Amino acid sequence: MSTALIPGSFDPVTYGHLDIIERTAHLFDDVLVAPMDNAAKATVFSLAERQDMLEDVTADLANVSIEAFKGLLVGFAVERGVSAIVKGLRAVSDFDYELQMAQLNYRLSGIETFFMPTTPQHSFLSSSLVREVARYGGDVSSMVPATVAQRLATRFAP
Amino acid sequence: MSTALIPGSFDPVTYGHLDIIERTAHLFDDVLVAPMDNAAKATVFSLAERQDMLEDVTADLANVSIEAFKGLLVGFAVERGVSAIVKGLRAVSDFDYELQMAQLNYRLSGIETFFMPTTPQHSFLSSSLVREVARYGGDVSSMVPATVAQRLATRFAP
Amino acid sequence: MSTALIPGSFDPVTYGHLDIIERTAHLFDDVLVAPMDNAAKATVFSLAERQDMLEDVTADLANVSIEAFKGLLVGFAVERGVSAIVKGLRAVSDFDYELQMAQLNYRLSGIETFFMPTTPQHSFLSSSLVREVARYGGDVSSMVPATVAQRLATRFAP
Amino acid sequence: MSTALIPGSFDPVTYGHLDIIERTAHLFDDVLVAPMDNAAKATVFSLAERQDMLEDVTADLANVSIEAFKGLLVGFAVERGVSAIVKGLRAVSDFDYELQMAQLNYRLSGIETFFMPTTPQHSFLSSSLVREVARYGGDVSSMVPATVAQRLATRFAP
Amino acid sequence: MSTALIPGSFDPVTYGHLDIIERTAHLFDDVLVAPMDNAAKATVFSLAERQDMLEDVTADLANVSIEAFKGLLVGFAVERGVSAIVKGLRAVSDFDYELQMAQLNYRLSGIETFFMPTTPQHSFLSSSLVREVARYGGDVSSMVPATVAQRLATRFAP
Amino acid sequence: MSTALIPGSFDPVTYGHLDIIERTAHLFDDVLVAPMDNAAKATVFSLAERQDMLEDVTADLANVSIEAFKGLLVGFAVERGVSAIVKGLRAVSDFDYELQMAQLNYRLSGIETFFMPTTPQHSFLSSSLVREVARYGGDVSSMVPATVAQRLATRFAP
Repeated sequence: MSTALIPGSFDPVTYGHLDIIERTAHLFDDVLVAPMDNAAKATVFSLAERQDMLEDVTADLANVSIEAFKGLLVGFAVERGVSAIVKGLRAVSDFDYELQMAQLNYRLSGIETFFMPTTPQHSFLSSSLVREVARYGGDVSSMVPATVAQRLATRFAP
Repeated sequence: MSTALIPGSFDPVTYGHLDIIERTAHLFDDVLVAPMDNAAKATVFSLAERQDMLEDVTADLANVSIEAFKGLLVGFAVERGVSAIVKGLRAVSDFDYELQMAQLNYRLSGIETFFMPTTPQHSFLSSSLVREVARYGGDVSSMVPATVAQRLATRFAP
Repeated sequence: MSTALIPGSFDPVTYGHLDIIERTAHLFDDVLVAPMDNAAKATVFSLAERQDMLEDVTADLANVSIEAFKGLLVGFAVERGVSAIVKGLRAVSDFDYELQMAQLNYRLSGIETFFMPTTPQHSFLSSSLVREVARYGGDVSSMVPATVAQRLATRFAP
Repeated sequence: MSTALIPGSFDPVTYGHLDIIERTAHLFDDVLVAPMDNAAKATVFSLAERQDMLEDVTADLANVSIEAFKGLLVGFAVERGVSAIVKGLRAVSDFDYELQMAQLNYRLSGIETFFMPTTPQHSFLSSSLVREVARYGGDVSSMVPATVAQRLATRFAP
Repeated sequence: MSTALIPGSFDPVTYGHLDIIERTAHLFDDVLVAPMDNAAKATVFSLAERQDMLEDVTADLANVSIEAFKGLLVGFAVERGVSAIVKGLRAVSDFDYELQMAQLNYRLSGIETFFMPTTPQHSFLSSSLVREVARYGGDVSSMVPATVAQRLATRFAP
Repeated sequence: MSTALIPGSFDPVTYGHLDIIERTAHLFDDVLVAPMDNAAKATVFSLAERQDMLEDVTADLANVSIEAFKGLLVGFAVERGVSAIVKGLRAVSDFDYELQMAQLNYRLSGIETFFMPTTPQHSFLSSSLVREVARYGGDVSSMVPATVAQRLATRFAP
């Protein structure tokens, strides 16, 4: 039984993430989506909130589960017995860093990373752009699911 | 009547920025240069100082005006009725982020972004390099107008 | 009166080109689309065919005209009195070459090049991919206008 | 049962290719390696020779089979019922073109492409560099399996 | 007598750095390795610790010396009479920033920067990845010399 | 005694090449500039012409010599006992290919490659752009030395 691990900050989850999750769910038996608890990086949403939003938006995907993790990604990946890590790639500027991480993770654990190109329509989406638009009251309804848009509106209410 | 909007931090304005402003001023009826008030990003010069320097160095460009703004760029662009946003592009590493911003801004507002390549002589100039050189007493006279060099000297005086 | 020049091979014109042409037509008084006669590069369609297809697909754009040219782009641009050259940019790999051309053309003629990002949906489209798909009988109807798809089918009929 | 398709020119197969094939074979039930017959591109080895070399070097991988193909990649992929296309990625300059191909192939067929980073030791290997070294009598024994090195020596014998 | 200057944060020194230092030491009469004291950037190891580690790991390289510096790199380079600055390059994402720094430093001082590609095996190594792995108790023994691994273990002991 | 090898096509030599040659000549005892005889690549100027032009434009550089070569670069480099290969780097798109060549050459011979950034003013210059401009009678006097401009004018005379 093959399991894919999709790690990320998901601060918050966007339609771009959701697209990668759904497409991965078609190709693997199980998909484990893992929001990271990174103490060194301030987030707008708490780990619990990020996990909640992921659970909301993947509720109808039977083979997708959510589990937050802390520490080294490959340690978590080995414990959960995943077959491969899957990452969406939007643009060249993502590529170099992700390639280094993938090669490091392979050396540390033998676990492969597969890169999946984002759907072109979502290629400019990122959580940080979404936060910036929401912070100033811009319309994010084409970028994130409704439940996420609502939480952003509440968080950044004047 | 066509208006170009040139947004930026301008912390401080460099000869690279000035080159883009002048060349844009030849192609559009009006040019609005807009230093951003970004609370999330500490600057060396206050918004008022950055606006002052821009006004000093563009004083002889009749169709250029300066106006600080806060909030979402495209909201400001729509309010001012601009025809297009113009950005200078120095290098590939600028490109990916700027492309994402441009595609986001177009989806949010229908306003286009035009990218204009920097003049090769200025291709390595950036405000952050200028600040770093000035901080340690290096010579910035070939990188910024005299009035800006003076303010940097005062700011970083030992 | 401002005129934009959009040069290219257009072998054949795609929905990606058409998108750039339409958006440029909103921002300039006139748009001159110029298929190049490049003796050094074999094309699938003759210069006359490429010009015909461009005229077909821009027929309803009142301020767009088509004119083939041969020789140095900036020589043609100066003769026609254009205000700026406009190029679509899809991806980083386009960027370096186009930046060099733009800086060269500016030094030779003083004419600026504006880069306009492609619409994300069209970011993977290129004439060469379209030709490759059509050559093997693949469906190109989402990539090129119907009149172009028909000409491709005829050209590559078994 | 999941099948991965690894297409390429394999002119000739290198240790870099072999590494991607072996790692893919650990993750999928079956791996179909497909040398392409591309009439538009001259090759040093015939399609039959390239297929032979691939069969030689994958002889001990039970779930790997070799099949040459001609025409549109996604047509072949659909006929064979593959789950995903797998491509090795060495460097950023590969990325843009491969991303466009992947997005095109997904639109044409719904078949996903997974990118797998090359092992760092092989990151500079390419068939074209191997051919260039062999052509001038350089030592390619660290770049290709012995059987391939022998064929190169024979092909480029003075 | 030719002297190469290798500046960096070295927080901590990795096998990737050491590889560049050793190869530079073969080509220049003297090599000066210079850890920077950058007040604006928090480091895990103090300047004295970073200098100590560099001295440990280069102890057997007769023509390599270590000297910390503060301020503008080119000021330091001119004072020490270096012939050239040498930097390792891992990936494209390093390149743009380093190119800008090199062109700036050349304009400020006339001192050249030579870029030397990292050995492929080390291409994914960076001090920040090493720190991240060590922070969570991962095995860094293939990435840094033993003395550095020990210091990391002590620093990040639970 | 240190010798740098600068290989290339030099079809024809540009001010960009000359800048790299001059700067390398300041840093090495001897500089060997080596135009390549590449049978697989058609050139506008013969190997003898390219060598002649290089000799003309480097006549006043006492420690620079010109020698054409054929075959594998590293074979030639080892025979001549060079200390390092030096290459100019203009842009990111050069970088990936050059990095692969450098890593290959190091594995084949142990000879290092140093990359030196072009002077910004020359960053858009390339032999192929020069040929294209000259072919259509454009002014290349700011791109190549006078003797080269004359040869181009003769070659492309109508």
